[in-house]
Amino acid sequence: QGTRDHSPAQAALRERLLSAVVSCFKRHGAAAIDTPVLELRETLIGQYGEGSKLIYELQDQGGELLALRYDLTVPFARYLAMNKITNMKRYHVAKVYRRDNPAMTRGRYREFYQCDFDIAGQFDPMIPDAECLKIVHEVLSDLQLGDFLIKVNDRRILSGVFAICGVPESKFIPACSTVDKLDKVPWEEVRSEMVGEKGLSPEAADLIGEYVQLHGGLDLIERLLQDPKLSQNKQAKEGLGDMKLLFEYLTLFGITGKISFDLSLARGLDYYTGVIFEAVLLQQENEHVEEPVSVGSVAGGGRYDGLVGMFDPKGRKVPCVGVSIGIERIFSILEQRLSMNGPCLSLQASGEKLRTTETQVLVATPQKHLLAARLKLISELWDAGIKAEMLYKKDPKLLKQLQYCEDTGIPLAAIVGEQELADGVVKLRDVATREEVRV
Amino acid sequence: QGTRDHSPAQAALRERLLSAVVSCFKRHGAAAIDTPVLELRETLIGQYGEGSKLIYELQDQGGELLALRYDLTVPFARYLAMNKITNMKRYHVAKVYRRDNPAMTRGRYREFYQCDFDIAGQFDPMIPDAECLKIVHEVLSDLQLGDFLIKVNDRRILSGVFAICGVPESKFIPACSTVDKLDKVPWEEVRSEMVGEKGLSPEAADLIGEYVQLHGGLDLIERLLQDPKLSQNKQAKEGLGDMKLLFEYLTLFGITGKISFDLSLARGLDYYTGVIFEAVLLQQENEHVEEPVSVGSVAGGGRYDGLVGMFDPKGRKVPCVGVSIGIERIFSILEQRLSMNGPCLSLQASGEKLRTTETQVLVATPQKHLLAARLKLISELWDAGIKAEMLYKKDPKLLKQLQYCEDTGIPLAAIVGEQELADGVVKLRDVATREEVRV
Repeated sequence: QGTRDHSPAQAALRERLLSAVVSCFKRHGAAAIDTPVLELRETLIGQYGEGSKLIYELQDQGGELLALRYDLTVPFARYLAMNKITNMKRYHVAKVYRRDNPAMTRGRYREFYQCDFDIAGQFDPMIPDAECLKIVHEVLSDLQLGDFLIKVNDRRILSGVFAICGVPESKFIPACSTVDKLDKVPWEEVRSEMVGEKGLSPEAADLIGEYVQLHGGLDLIERLLQDPKLSQNKQAKEGLGDMKLLFEYLTLFGITGKISFDLSLARGLDYYTGVIFEAVLLQQENEHVEEPVSVGSVAGGGRYDGLVGMFDPKGRKVPCVGVSIGIERIFSILEQRLSMNGPCLSLQASGEKLRTTETQVLVATPQKHLLAARLKLISELWDAGIKAEMLYKKDPKLLKQLQYCEDTGIPLAAIVGEQELADGVVKLRDVATREEVRV
Repeated sequence: QGTRDHSPAQAALRERLLSAVVSCFKRHGAAAIDTPVLELRETLIGQYGEGSKLIYELQDQGGELLALRYDLTVPFARYLAMNKITNMKRYHVAKVYRRDNPAMTRGRYREFYQCDFDIAGQFDPMIPDAECLKIVHEVLSDLQLGDFLIKVNDRRILSGVFAICGVPESKFIPACSTVDKLDKVPWEEVRSEMVGEKGLSPEAADLIGEYVQLHGGLDLIERLLQDPKLSQNKQAKEGLGDMKLLFEYLTLFGITGKISFDLSLARGLDYYTGVIFEAVLLQQENEHVEEPVSVGSVAGGGRYDGLVGMFDPKGRKVPCVGVSIGIERIFSILEQRLSMNGPCLSLQASGEKLRTTETQVLVATPQKHLLAARLKLISELWDAGIKAEMLYKKDPKLLKQLQYCEDTGIPLAAIVGEQELADGVVKLRDVATREEVRV
């Protein structure tokens, strides 16, 4: 339940997607690492807040107690601490596991790929953070998914807001997870959850409401820096100062047009300590809708300066910031746009066909008793690095062989018949145009 | 236990290996598929003979009883049956899991990659089988691992040998697994295990010994086809006939020089029904050794015509043949040849360096207060698809920046200083030669 096989057409589409993402990560100088799918249970438990109950555990068959990884961030932090690495830019593309309620049509699975890029190390503020946002912008632009928006906030600003609104510190995290729902439900519902379930005072909730419904750009940052109450809070002031710096860098990158400083963004995970962000695709299909509607998050990330220290025996901290591309949701969106039948995918918009194989030439014969000639020729082609196939029949019909080329998109047929053998040549046929040359 | 992280240097080496293997699979026209790491326990149990006790089981947390896949062959057969596919050439590169005793220096892990290529479908005899052997030959040649030998046998020939030597059919499989040890221990030991543990008569064991110590080529096949007893056994006769055909095709491929028809090859898994094969590397390092010594199996496979039918509700069979490349053992061999320290791998033999990143240019400044200029330039480079990095410092020293290039193998530095900014140019520096041009 919640997992699936990938057919050749799906695997080809996914390979194309992953390769676009990895290209971007390499363009930014990241090295690859890999960690086991299995982690010690104790490494994972307690890192994911409410998510911890979704961890897959292995049966105790003797030896260590194991679990399947829940994300790639905690294994990365464990890797850094274990190897005493204080400085690293890495990417990791791999499957993670969550015993969640699957919603397969919306791209939510129990086994799914994550594509993570992270920068670990003590650097000058906001330079690596800005690069992470640039990467989200590049990936979503490269994949041509349509219009998108990257929401940015900072955990320190949120903490400051909660503090000046009179929320006790013990309720920051529950308040955070309630605020995070603002992208799905209206403020009234969020407010009543705050007051009802989370036990905040109605006054505190109303004050919070005034802040978390704000979104904007540099102008909003400037305004909040002047806010008489918020500017007195140390955490908020630091967060706003860094946010201003971040926007300066994003301006130099030329990407502020798609960035929104959004105080309702909170993110679910416990380990974030600074900047947080999330990218959403904007609905465009229905042009009657006046304002673009979000169709869900396709990338997210943030700064987590405390996580590595939790795995170091001496608690040495390594500041980190990273981004995770939600490739599975992007895959679902693209899959729905494509017709996924048969050995070729057609990209309906462009009329382009995505093949599931890369075969360049089919070695074919028009007569019987020429298997030996085909085997000799195909062997020469393979040894020369040419991608070649033949039918696994002693005496296939020429029509069947050409039909196979058309079905699978093989552009050329190399035909050896009795005449060609006698003349020491091969007839090369362009399958689409039917043109033939002897070589 | 038995798993490991891959550092950037190891990940880069593995990426190079996997990409060579996948190139070969694509050259032969295979499409990719992917299946979940999790399978239903009932799918795996009973497929692997003695291996079944090595299966990792997941804890029962409600829902289905799950296990981690043990190989890629059973999931492939399950996939074919589930989707009623009767015809497919696919490759699959993914991790599998076995609770084995790890021997990490020899490349035996509990989590390891397999690279599988399989051809499913009803075809004329031995054409797909020959292609699998060609693939092993290509991969091992491409990877330049040194001399190798591919041993070939057929389960039907082995069954015939056992039958004519008076072994009851119920003891074929135990006898098989004893014969399989002949590559590690001398015949005397194998014989005493047969008579002792497996309960064969001494006469049967001696007769078997006369056959299973044979190895050769087409000449041996011809001789056994004339063997008065063996040629009377239906299974052996079919196996030998197909073996002859296989050698004809391998001769056309020009690879018989590295193929040995070896009657001691038995292979451990239960599901093989016809041709079986295994590739071993031959020791060359010590030239005093007169005969080359095997350093272990690096690829194996065979025909399994019954497996898909076990997953089909109506038992419909789909004949299959496939090969699995033991990439983890090959990785261990290469890793031992290389010095794996630092951000570059040096291939000691060639002096070549294997980088862990692909960065083409570092954006650098010789003076302070030029962060904005660097951010603008690097953004332009990224947008143009150029792999670029910069140090995450506001004012790094030029020496440190050039040192970073040397450490990580970045060939070029794009330098923007005050003069360059004023002139509207960039100074491009070749890190190795120190040559500079203004562009």
